[in-house]
Amino acid sequence: MSGIKIEVNIIEKITTVKEMQRHSDQLRYQGRSIALVPTMGFLHEGHLSLIRKGRTLCDDLVVSIFINPTQFGPGEDLEAYPRDLSRDIYLLKKEYVDVLFLPDAEELYTEGFQTYVELEKLPKHLCGLSRPTHFKGVSTVVTKLFNAVKPHFAIFGQKDYQQLIIIKRMVIDLNFDTEIIGFPIVRETDGLALSSRNAHLTDEQRPAALTLFKSLKKAEELVENGINDPATIIDAASNLILSYPETSIDYIKICDTKTLEEMVIIDREALMAIAVKVGKTRLIDNMMLHPLSEPV
Amino acid sequence: MSGIKIEVNIIEKITTVKEMQRHSDQLRYQGRSIALVPTMGFLHEGHLSLIRKGRTLCDDLVVSIFINPTQFGPGEDLEAYPRDLSRDIYLLKKEYVDVLFLPDAEELYTEGFQTYVELEKLPKHLCGLSRPTHFKGVSTVVTKLFNAVKPHFAIFGQKDYQQLIIIKRMVIDLNFDTEIIGFPIVRETDGLALSSRNAHLTDEQRPAALTLFKSLKKAEELVENGINDPATIIDAASNLILSYPETSIDYIKICDTKTLEEMVIIDREALMAIAVKVGKTRLIDNMMLHPLSEPV
Repeated sequence: MSGIKIEVNIIEKITTVKEMQRHSDQLRYQGRSIALVPTMGFLHEGHLSLIRKGRTLCDDLVVSIFINPTQFGPGEDLEAYPRDLSRDIYLLKKEYVDVLFLPDAEELYTEGFQTYVELEKLPKHLCGLSRPTHFKGVSTVVTKLFNAVKPHFAIFGQKDYQQLIIIKRMVIDLNFDTEIIGFPIVRETDGLALSSRNAHLTDEQRPAALTLFKSLKKAEELVENGINDPATIIDAASNLILSYPETSIDYIKICDTKTLEEMVIIDREALMAIAVKVGKTRLIDNMMLHPLSEPV
Repeated sequence: MSGIKIEVNIIEKITTVKEMQRHSDQLRYQGRSIALVPTMGFLHEGHLSLIRKGRTLCDDLVVSIFINPTQFGPGEDLEAYPRDLSRDIYLLKKEYVDVLFLPDAEELYTEGFQTYVELEKLPKHLCGLSRPTHFKGVSTVVTKLFNAVKPHFAIFGQKDYQQLIIIKRMVIDLNFDTEIIGFPIVRETDGLALSSRNAHLTDEQRPAALTLFKSLKKAEELVENGINDPATIIDAASNLILSYPETSIDYIKICDTKTLEEMVIIDREALMAIAVKVGKTRLIDNMMLHPLSEPV
């Protein structure tokens, strides 16, 4: 390829809310459609699949990178959250992203900040139990990003299934004019769900991290074999995960896909969701379970 | 004027959020600016002054009428809140309002509704103390109205001063792209602040209702005479109000205009705010007090 000049795609970097709003107004005034992929950076193939999905939906694709302090609780990994902005920008350019929205914390949380968006029920399950303020931070910052970017579409990964249905509910309840698109979990070839936090795993921890996916596959197999008792399935998953050192289970739950309430019998499509700490790294994964006699 | 045909102004009535959003998108696409005056109907001169202000700011003026159930607490006057839609529409047409946004409660609060917008500090003062869920309902419904109408400007009366600064703070915190315009209190010739709830007052109760304004004027006079002790001023106001039968004081406060925290000495511009029940009718009023030696 020597001698051939590689065109570098251009990405517009916007750091203030006002500038982002004026840019989006201009696009909408031109009749152009906008999609937003909100991220906390340190992009991996999971993000890129959301970005590629977004690219197919709109004229102008905006990716935001903002490590949102209000969704990290005390003692969580805000400071340790991995960052690599120059690599992120390189990847975004390769995917023909039009705008990188890159506000800093001072831009989004000004002095005297005191307004939060909060859901009453959906956050009181799964990750919300061990991270009681997490989803309040998420719904608040997504509201802010929607008001800044004014997207027609926003794409979220199904790995954070609880986050996805919280955002969908919030959009209905607060009448946001944005369509929420969920996108399937992207996995490594060995099955490990992609996460920026995987960067923290040592080679020795990787087999333990893999037990999340293995547990879900085991559950799928049990359900296909007619087991419909959540406790039996959760026990099997728990035993598999705890057979590895350095693991501690936050939760393993089988719940209703809409309300996230725990199911006592798997008599319809169910969400199996897992959160496990491997060493200091908290990992989540999930899968839909379909019983043999699922109602049509 | 007989023989001259009076043109009846046309107003567009929109009842669904989706239709409102498409309408506003179309206006914005045409480069037109939108102002919103949110009301609960039963319009009076106070509303009309907001509407006239709005009319000067924009190309297209939207007035919403929605008696918002989430801002009424248990035992408050949701059912008794006065209504007269046909008169309201007549008045809106006279003021050349372009759109009446008139959703019903089922349109704005669908099954499973659970998302609220809430401020942490400003609602914990004044009316928020006796109406602990009121402003949560207000900030939530205003968020919904902003997302439905997408206004460039929204006009609120200063009679609900606490509401006004809560909305202003919310707009900053959540990055709404809407400029909030406050408009001075409109009064009857005798000084009574206009309110839809005044319709509930009997002729006998009216002198008692007037004591809110008289107390504020008395306070203004005291401050102009060099009194800077809030307790002295509040005592004088309290004595005046309680000298009438059927009155009970919810609060009389002198507070910081930005934080609403009570002031111990009036050494800068201060908000004096009053809430009184006259019979079953709850009235509010307020005024800015300016000490003699106000810092520049």
